[in-house]
Amino acid sequence: MYTPEQLQDLINKEIAEKHYPLSPSELYDPIQYIMSLGGKRMRPALVLMACDLFEGSVIKALQPALGIEMFHNFTLMHDDIMDRAPLRRGRQTVHTKWNENVAILSGDVMLVEAYKLITLVDDTILRKVLDIFSETASGVCEGQQTDMNFEVSDSVTIPDYIEMIRLKTAVLLGCSLKIGALIGNADDQFSSYLYKFGENLGIAFQLQDDILDIYGDPEKFGKQVGGDIISNKKTFLLIKALEIAEGLDAEELHYWLNSEDPETEAKIKSVTDIYNRLGVRQLAEKEMSHFAEQALSHLEKINVPSERKLVLRGFADQLLIREN
Amino acid sequence: MYTPEQLQDLINKEIAEKHYPLSPSELYDPIQYIMSLGGKRMRPALVLMACDLFEGSVIKALQPALGIEMFHNFTLMHDDIMDRAPLRRGRQTVHTKWNENVAILSGDVMLVEAYKLITLVDDTILRKVLDIFSETASGVCEGQQTDMNFEVSDSVTIPDYIEMIRLKTAVLLGCSLKIGALIGNADDQFSSYLYKFGENLGIAFQLQDDILDIYGDPEKFGKQVGGDIISNKKTFLLIKALEIAEGLDAEELHYWLNSEDPETEAKIKSVTDIYNRLGVRQLAEKEMSHFAEQALSHLEKINVPSERKLVLRGFADQLLIREN
Repeated sequence: MYTPEQLQDLINKEIAEKHYPLSPSELYDPIQYIMSLGGKRMRPALVLMACDLFEGSVIKALQPALGIEMFHNFTLMHDDIMDRAPLRRGRQTVHTKWNENVAILSGDVMLVEAYKLITLVDDTILRKVLDIFSETASGVCEGQQTDMNFEVSDSVTIPDYIEMIRLKTAVLLGCSLKIGALIGNADDQFSSYLYKFGENLGIAFQLQDDILDIYGDPEKFGKQVGGDIISNKKTFLLIKALEIAEGLDAEELHYWLNSEDPETEAKIKSVTDIYNRLGVRQLAEKEMSHFAEQALSHLEKINVPSERKLVLRGFADQLLIREN
Repeated sequence: MYTPEQLQDLINKEIAEKHYPLSPSELYDPIQYIMSLGGKRMRPALVLMACDLFEGSVIKALQPALGIEMFHNFTLMHDDIMDRAPLRRGRQTVHTKWNENVAILSGDVMLVEAYKLITLVDDTILRKVLDIFSETASGVCEGQQTDMNFEVSDSVTIPDYIEMIRLKTAVLLGCSLKIGALIGNADDQFSSYLYKFGENLGIAFQLQDDILDIYGDPEKFGKQVGGDIISNKKTFLLIKALEIAEGLDAEELHYWLNSEDPETEAKIKSVTDIYNRLGVRQLAEKEMSHFAEQALSHLEKINVPSERKLVLRGFADQLLIREN
């Protein structure tokens, strides 16, 4: 078996060495650029880990793994336009460095390139790989649209929110694992368990993100602590707080949500105090644990020697106790 | 065999009856909207014609044909954002009727939907269909980027231009025919001939478009005659005129190209007069005939009874003697 570090090295090397057509440069340079910005690259790692779990050829899984990372970066490139984000991983976003048209069209060709790479699999599994990938790709777009709709909605419930993050974030983790499993010749049942492992893990991961935004260590978080509070982002914490706050807490929370141009430090502190009084952090952690347990229970069901599962279990642990 | 009208009816019915998910409506309503705007729908017709040429099941070709039309409309939706176009087929463009984010994300999901529909083919031809479609999709993006680059370039040659329209317009006609041929169980050789037929026809079609913009009958053209002249669009006619104009003609042409906010009627008349003196219309028609002949010579090589080819030959004739 490969160690996580070995798998990550394989992926990093493959991304660094990948060549794109030289022309038109406005189409392909941004792909090279965004792919080289790094990030955790956990989705391609999941493809390889899943393949390795079933003793499949990790080398054969490399191009599809790259395709998954290509798809993920396509969504980032287009999301950044939609969110008017100036920075991504501390560097200029593509629509800022080039322009919006370049970011639209480069993104489009990345989606095509993702299909090309992901379908570099044996003909025997081509149909299954295609089906799960296309289904996932539609789901991710639905999740992004739903997320944008939430920004202007007053009636987002916790189940709505969980469904949104399932689509926007979690299904791609499930898909990565399932494709890896298929390449590793896993049977349908085990591939589906692995999908469920990834999907539930993805939801737990996003809930952890919501918690870290407020309770993360500023030294380690890498983003501004409280960013979600400043932007009134409808995270699990805010939705839950709106649901259970009463009396003065509710009044104060609405005051901060509706105040135009507030003093940011004061807003972060006051809203965090409300969250603390309501105990929404604990509720979020409980929800996160629920999905983490769901994830692990699906991993359990897969009939391979348990030492082979250590890599994926370690990955899950790391994801859920991370500080950034 | 089916008549062209029967095939068009099948396509129109299929598009009219297609159901999309209800939610999120911002994602799927624009797809329904743009697909219902009509247009010639010649690409899906080509899929069906090619399939029918080889006595394949036209019914089996319907969903992939729809996928090709879906892909074409995805490119229109994104091109309209990039071109800041307010209207498409006389109706509001998606980014105008909704907003730019909706047009980006709906377009993205259309590309995924196109893949889903186009790959609804037998497993025996799935790989070939996927390969030609992905290759074509990248090519169309490259063509669009090259076209945008031409807007700000002073050194576009005729071969550059032909290559750009080959990518932006022609390869999708070739791809439509090839996929239809594959569904009709044509062998590789004949599928490739049909691709070449479509590719050459597509180039001829675009050259005809350039000619019609200036020399079309205003009553029948459907767009403003001279639109390309007003916007200094680098068509075959302009590139050729810049290449061969000398002395006063060259001076006058550059004057109009560089004049800010010119009187449009005067500009159209003057530039058209220059074109007439230089005979660029005849040169464009000669070029168009060359590609039309190339197209037909590939159709000739296909070994099916010549009466089966009448539909495609008729389609080519109609395309090249059209007035809009």
